[in-house]
Amino acid sequence: MKLVRFLSGQEAELGVLTSDGSRVVPLAREKGWWPGSDMTGLISDWSAELRDRLGEAARSGDGLDVGAVRLLAPLAPLRRNVFCVGKNYAEHVAEIERSGFVSSNQGPPPKPAIFTKATTAVIGPGDPIPAHADLTRALDYEGELAVVIGVGGSRIPAESALDHVFGFTILNDVTARDLQRDHQQWFIGKSLDGFCPMGPSITTRDEVDGSRLDVRCWVNGELRQDSNTSQLITGIPALIATISAGITLLPGDVIATGTPQGVGAGFDPPRFLGPGDEVAIEISGLGRLLNRVAD
Amino acid sequence: MKLVRFLSGQEAELGVLTSDGSRVVPLAREKGWWPGSDMTGLISDWSAELRDRLGEAARSGDGLDVGAVRLLAPLAPLRRNVFCVGKNYAEHVAEIERSGFVSSNQGPPPKPAIFTKATTAVIGPGDPIPAHADLTRALDYEGELAVVIGVGGSRIPAESALDHVFGFTILNDVTARDLQRDHQQWFIGKSLDGFCPMGPSITTRDEVDGSRLDVRCWVNGELRQDSNTSQLITGIPALIATISAGITLLPGDVIATGTPQGVGAGFDPPRFLGPGDEVAIEISGLGRLLNRVAD
Repeated sequence: MKLVRFLSGQEAELGVLTSDGSRVVPLAREKGWWPGSDMTGLISDWSAELRDRLGEAARSGDGLDVGAVRLLAPLAPLRRNVFCVGKNYAEHVAEIERSGFVSSNQGPPPKPAIFTKATTAVIGPGDPIPAHADLTRALDYEGELAVVIGVGGSRIPAESALDHVFGFTILNDVTARDLQRDHQQWFIGKSLDGFCPMGPSITTRDEVDGSRLDVRCWVNGELRQDSNTSQLITGIPALIATISAGITLLPGDVIATGTPQGVGAGFDPPRFLGPGDEVAIEISGLGRLLNRVAD
Repeated sequence: MKLVRFLSGQEAELGVLTSDGSRVVPLAREKGWWPGSDMTGLISDWSAELRDRLGEAARSGDGLDVGAVRLLAPLAPLRRNVFCVGKNYAEHVAEIERSGFVSSNQGPPPKPAIFTKATTAVIGPGDPIPAHADLTRALDYEGELAVVIGVGGSRIPAESALDHVFGFTILNDVTARDLQRDHQQWFIGKSLDGFCPMGPSITTRDEVDGSRLDVRCWVNGELRQDSNTSQLITGIPALIATISAGITLLPGDVIATGTPQGVGAGFDPPRFLGPGDEVAIEISGLGRLLNRVAD
């Protein structure tokens, strides 16, 4: 099933999409499928009973026309920074090192390059990406599959790592390449306000196989990125094992798995984003995340 | 004044230390100086009235013997990762690049190297630092001044940045040097569970001048680090301006300002930490943070 956060009135609500995707069933109204408006809370409390109840909600025939509500980032506010993986598709490693915006002599790291994005960077589907023109001349997109952790834990073996996955969403790891380069560590260049579009929903893990999903990204309708998560250098189970080896994962944690080749910095000359540009990302079974750079 | 989180019964409480530091006045008991147990909430609600009320509590003569309570990390749970600054004392830049554990040809970055530590790394005064011996052979200490943000904001000018500082605390930016090196980005090597000892209190900014504080760190009683925050390459106002230029700061955010020379990796051969080693950090006016590596 697909879970969403949305606005139809003044307050954010949680909902589940009907199977045809046309309607959203508000979880806290009338039948009280789920009382709160906090997705992390729902994920923390997840159980077979809750899953069955929400499945019933999705089939209930209740609900609002999805076109009449505003979808929000499904997980906000996050309880901590987004975990992100860099240099996780071979051809992207080559293009980004060639670009000069990251150290060019390092190659794929012996262990995954993990950094974070600030919670305040998160925006929802359709929200404008601020251009931050006073801070960067090198605004770039990165279409990515993001994993949402369900059951937390530490020292999770790769063999059972998928048991800890609640679901998947689409994430745009928006990056100011000049800040990424000048600060050496990538956090600042990845974390400006609005640099983490996310959504449109969380698709539960029973619906898709995260190891073989098409990832495509268009800028103004032109296909720029076109790959598949089968090309990940470090796949989802190994990423979860690597992070949780020493860092306890929590319900609602988000891990962005890295971007394939075709980012703006990879072109010669680079093709960075400017005001009004539209970035659309599609991942098989997860829908479409569309954001425009603010004018 | 000095604010603390502590345990005397089963539940964490907030308190204020009496001016001689001998007693802690619980804020939520009896007179209801402050109702909650969440330091971020207290900082978010901070006002002149609240400051006066807590000042009165500190002078009230009430309170528990500080030796009879267990002090906790003053800010936990954090609402997001700790902001950290690397390479921010010139002699430390030289020692750490010489060590080979970070890229050796980069020098001080043109802009501050900012990374984060995971929320789950936070531990309190006296808590054991896990050795993570299965993950690292290069466990290291970094004594640091940490700034606690009071009033949030974005695009904060350096000139008024100190108005956004609530106070200061001591932080040990514990680091697994081999992981810091192998993952290229520093997040993992800095974020293992227990790698962020913090405390013993938050000293409000009216009590100290953050720009001229002695920072000293001892391992098993041997002085290893001995510097002063006047030596920071990027000082506190410029750090706040740099981060908030694009990232909205929130009340309760923590910014660790970097460590001076004398870390274990800086010695030849390196002097890393092992089970039972005791790390003590003192900063003028802020007290002493002591933690031992778990056996």
